[in-house]
Amino acid sequence: MVNARISDPLNAFCKDTNAYLEGIPGGPLSNMTFAAKDIFDIQGHVTGGGNPDWRASQVVAKETAWAVGILVDAGANMIGKTLTDEITRGIFGENAHYGTPVNVNAPGRVTGGSSSGSAAAVAGGLVDFALGSDTGGSVRVPASFCGLYGLRPTHGRISLKGVLPQSSSYDTVGWFAREPEIFAKVGSVILQSDGTNELPRRVVIAQDAFELLPTNVFDALQPSVQRICSLIGQQSSARLAETSLSEWRDQQGVLQSREAWETVRNWIDETNPRFSFEVSERYVLAKNISDSDIESSRKIKSQVLNRMNDLLSDKAVICLPTTIGPAPPIGQKLSDRTDLRLKTSQLTCIAGTTGGPQINLPLAHVDGMPVGISLLGCPGDDEALIEVARRLRVAN
Amino acid sequence: MVNARISDPLNAFCKDTNAYLEGIPGGPLSNMTFAAKDIFDIQGHVTGGGNPDWRASQVVAKETAWAVGILVDAGANMIGKTLTDEITRGIFGENAHYGTPVNVNAPGRVTGGSSSGSAAAVAGGLVDFALGSDTGGSVRVPASFCGLYGLRPTHGRISLKGVLPQSSSYDTVGWFAREPEIFAKVGSVILQSDGTNELPRRVVIAQDAFELLPTNVFDALQPSVQRICSLIGQQSSARLAETSLSEWRDQQGVLQSREAWETVRNWIDETNPRFSFEVSERYVLAKNISDSDIESSRKIKSQVLNRMNDLLSDKAVICLPTTIGPAPPIGQKLSDRTDLRLKTSQLTCIAGTTGGPQINLPLAHVDGMPVGISLLGCPGDDEALIEVARRLRVAN
Repeated sequence: MVNARISDPLNAFCKDTNAYLEGIPGGPLSNMTFAAKDIFDIQGHVTGGGNPDWRASQVVAKETAWAVGILVDAGANMIGKTLTDEITRGIFGENAHYGTPVNVNAPGRVTGGSSSGSAAAVAGGLVDFALGSDTGGSVRVPASFCGLYGLRPTHGRISLKGVLPQSSSYDTVGWFAREPEIFAKVGSVILQSDGTNELPRRVVIAQDAFELLPTNVFDALQPSVQRICSLIGQQSSARLAETSLSEWRDQQGVLQSREAWETVRNWIDETNPRFSFEVSERYVLAKNISDSDIESSRKIKSQVLNRMNDLLSDKAVICLPTTIGPAPPIGQKLSDRTDLRLKTSQLTCIAGTTGGPQINLPLAHVDGMPVGISLLGCPGDDEALIEVARRLRVAN
Repeated sequence: MVNARISDPLNAFCKDTNAYLEGIPGGPLSNMTFAAKDIFDIQGHVTGGGNPDWRASQVVAKETAWAVGILVDAGANMIGKTLTDEITRGIFGENAHYGTPVNVNAPGRVTGGSSSGSAAAVAGGLVDFALGSDTGGSVRVPASFCGLYGLRPTHGRISLKGVLPQSSSYDTVGWFAREPEIFAKVGSVILQSDGTNELPRRVVIAQDAFELLPTNVFDALQPSVQRICSLIGQQSSARLAETSLSEWRDQQGVLQSREAWETVRNWIDETNPRFSFEVSERYVLAKNISDSDIESSRKIKSQVLNRMNDLLSDKAVICLPTTIGPAPPIGQKLSDRTDLRLKTSQLTCIAGTTGGPQINLPLAHVDGMPVGISLLGCPGDDEALIEVARRLRVAN
């Protein structure tokens, strides 16, 4: 019962729902189409969350999620719900139940996840923009892999009302677009803001983040880094972590995982749901996190926050790679995928921890495949990051 | 495509295979029907193992499992393959993919597993007997819950050729029947033995095993214990474990789990299969067992073996409850099921560790539901245990 309005050669849309909302005429997003990840409630439809046993345990939503509603009110037509990794647990987009959306910009490669179908639909031109969510990288990673603009906004900036939660201290609503002007227009609506003309005052290049990259990816990103530095003006370099970014990742992994487990533990206990082994493994490890692990992770978190506060002073933004490289092939071994997830999380954990916004700019390619560069700001800097995206495109 | 020969009101049979083998006329099992758990290879059919992703990664079997073949050669008609817990990991019979077979002798209750469909089919009269397997209790537990005769034979006594392995140091082929005469006839064929007229010389009642039972179950089993003691003659009581049966269980759990993980780790890494959370959790915990856990479990195992050798000297058998009580309700919470599995494994671990045979005798009821009593012997005592079953019935 896929929506008859949608031709879906990319396996981007959910096949078991037919959600459609017509935009209210006359708004700033009139005549645009969008899709929403299947974690956003749509009145009268079941929110599937990428897992058939989750879906089976839900009732139809009584209200439409806030973020969807405001876009429809602004004129955009919501034409379908998109595939997600199970309960948003994943950054690669290979769903063991529903398959893998197609990445038109990197054939044979994953789209990234967990907002996999949303990224696939935008990259493939099936919609003008799409809603996703980002807890541990789920907008930023697919934006990088699919060559899209994508924002993880300031934590708490966009209402999570009607969105399936994963880890509430880290969950955010984000969106994708191919073009910065459309990206900015959606931003004005969903951030309820007129935007800004002001750019960040200075760029700090995150040395230890770039050191994680293979040489070819490092080299491919340099022209984009230079363009960003030229636009903003003042630049410097710094190592973010006094110890290592893997320590930063681990504290975030522990704290996010504990919350993710608390979110679903009763449901799991009651229904013994089917997950891919990969997803179950993360929950089992989360279940076994000790209180002393939590305590020591909290201490490291506060060190990260202090360090990032210093680095971001005086309207700075951090420039870092969004991912370790372009999208990996579909069907990698679990062990290889786990390694890559852990490497990637050294980059994505930072905004998760600070709660600040991070934008992916789709400015580079490696071997013909997209790979993104990111800017990360202080909480509230969302508009300034979007303005960088807009101006870089204008300057092109 | 369920076998047209089978009416299956009990959800005992696999729906995705149509295996049938006609018995060779004139043998000792002529005109009998049986079923085989879907871990036994049947030439020309895929062995599903209770998991759709396992099934999808298999090719059709080139040969029929040894145990099935010898029964067919003896005249029995194999009329279908039966449901199993996923990859035999479970003792309750609730399969998250294929549902729960019906226990006709305890409505609303599980059949027990992992040989769930085989036990359901025999209890419900759909076949005369059925093949199962027992690694950690998978014949003994459903025999107890369904009110059937069931044997975990001496380890290595019945060939595992063509049987999906779980943990090779613990895997055994077993069978179920409603009647001791049929049970014994099948035993003669599959054990390739003329049986014995000799009974064990003495019974040792396992005090610490009986202490695990709630009072009503303890009381319900006493008449059966007395019948067994009267038949065999000499009786005594002893505590099996110098420390506790939970320590005995834990060493077996560690050693079996490590083997179970080694059996599937490459397949899991390559295919990221879907399991119920319960099954994944056991594999994840197994994956994280340390070498020092293995080492200390091996030490305890050798203490168990020494102790059991002493207790079983002079042709003794141990009398113990098969399970903690009758079958639990279908749809228990995972945490409750895990608790019950751990309690039950204090009983089932013993034969697993010694490699000796254990027979379930369906001699008792609690609240109208079957609950079994067990006899456990030295390796090689299979026939003597079967003879006890036969004589108890004759004496009835």
